[in-house]
Amino acid sequence: MKIVNYSEVSGHTFDNEVVKGVIGRVVIGKNDGAQNFCMRVFVMETGGFTPKHSHPWEHEVFIHAGRGKMLREGEWVDVESGTVLFIPGGEEHQFKNTGTDELVFVCLIPSGIAEI
Amino acid sequence: MKIVNYSEVSGHTFDNEVVKGVIGRVVIGKNDGAQNFCMRVFVMETGGFTPKHSHPWEHEVFIHAGRGKMLREGEWVDVESGTVLFIPGGEEHQFKNTGTDELVFVCLIPSGIAEI
Repeated sequence: MKIVNYSEVSGHTFDNEVVKGVIGRVVIGKNDGAQNFCMRVFVMETGGFTPKHSHPWEHEVFIHAGRGKMLREGEWVDVESGTVLFIPGGEEHQFKNTGTDELVFVCLIPSGIAEI
Repeated sequence: MKIVNYSEVSGHTFDNEVVKGVIGRVVIGKNDGAQNFCMRVFVMETGGFTPKHSHPWEHEVFIHAGRGKMLREGEWVDVESGTVLFIPGGEEHQFKNTGTDELVFVCLIPSGIAEI
């Protein structure tokens, strides 16, 4: 059994024109023997955002901390600590941090694709 | 895309000799079209616990709030907000809330088994 605080896992920094102010960590993945799905934790600074994109695989997301917005069918929807999101495959989506604190969210994907 | 606060989802109460003071919610599951895995959120009162058991499927867990302990190979290990746990299939496990606040955790399982 693996037990670790997400902040202790080494992160990948994303900071360019399509994804800004984001650190992503693979906290449970194939290296842990996870056969079915992969857990990542993302920390996004104030003003940061993820890419506006879509892809064939789904996301299951839990907002751990902070406040932000998710693009759904062209409209920005408020999200905050405790919000759950299911993003089906093929659906366009984008997160942004509109709050004053870090936006921290858990994002799970099926196994068999790039983990981050 | 489904966007909901976990607290708005109807819960199942567990309170007997093997699982005490726990409310479980299926927040993303087969009714949402999730094909690969299922997200549940559990809220455990102070002094509560989950069953001491094992089963063939794995858990991926993220502790959202509170403090508690997880039984791992016969030893109780501290967990708290931000802790990630990967419990492989077949491994005995049990949570208990040893803190003064609710212990809130996200627990994911593969699709194809009982969701709660």
